[in-house]
Amino acid sequence: MLSDAECLALLRGGAVGRIGLSVDALPVVLPVNYVVDGDRILLRSGFGTKLAAALRNAVVCFEVDDIDERHHIGWSVLATGTARELVGGEAARAATLSLRPWAPDVGDHLISIDVELLSGRRICAARAAATA
Amino acid sequence: MLSDAECLALLRGGAVGRIGLSVDALPVVLPVNYVVDGDRILLRSGFGTKLAAALRNAVVCFEVDDIDERHHIGWSVLATGTARELVGGEAARAATLSLRPWAPDVGDHLISIDVELLSGRRICAARAAATA
Repeated sequence: MLSDAECLALLRGGAVGRIGLSVDALPVVLPVNYVVDGDRILLRSGFGTKLAAALRNAVVCFEVDDIDERHHIGWSVLATGTARELVGGEAARAATLSLRPWAPDVGDHLISIDVELLSGRRICAARAAATA
Repeated sequence: MLSDAECLALLRGGAVGRIGLSVDALPVVLPVNYVVDGDRILLRSGFGTKLAAALRNAVVCFEVDDIDERHHIGWSVLATGTARELVGGEAARAATLSLRPWAPDVGDHLISIDVELLSGRRICAARAAATA
């Protein structure tokens, strides 16, 4: 298990994560680019009004990982927190961060996930662990 | 948007995906290696008894993507379906597939996600799309 400081450092170093939430009572996981600002994760909602609505004050999770599929090693971090749409001055300030949508069809909703829980782990191949 | 056939082909070509589900009413996303067998996704539960319990007949989603963080292009596929633990003969048959856990602490639960919904999209950078 990784410490909160390690998890935050790994989160800050990433560019693409996956948000996990419920849409119409079904679990949904979608990749999105993001930035970390203090202890919150910022992203733009590019998944339509339904997702944007779901994100308003919903508890969501955000997963980032880096896994070497060849050597079966890597790490993953899971952040959980409340999502909310930034508006007004908060949105204006966040807009100065280098958070530009990658896809051309991304909406204008600027979402913040205020991180309340962090967990992470390193993934070590069984063989590597046995010989470590 | 990608067709179901395209989504399945991309799923079959992957090795690591992320399962999305609810654990104690909170959304959770965890990376896991997998194989596709027909129209179901097979994985081993390495996340303890709580997750294994949650997976029994729960509706979960499974996301696979391949995103070039430098050029902001790639694809993602989301499969949704019912998870169930394979036991007895089904488990024995599935055990012959090349599905070995990567981490040394993975449990013995063999999980099948019977895919009922598929969706996928290509991610194109705004600039690339504008000039295409």
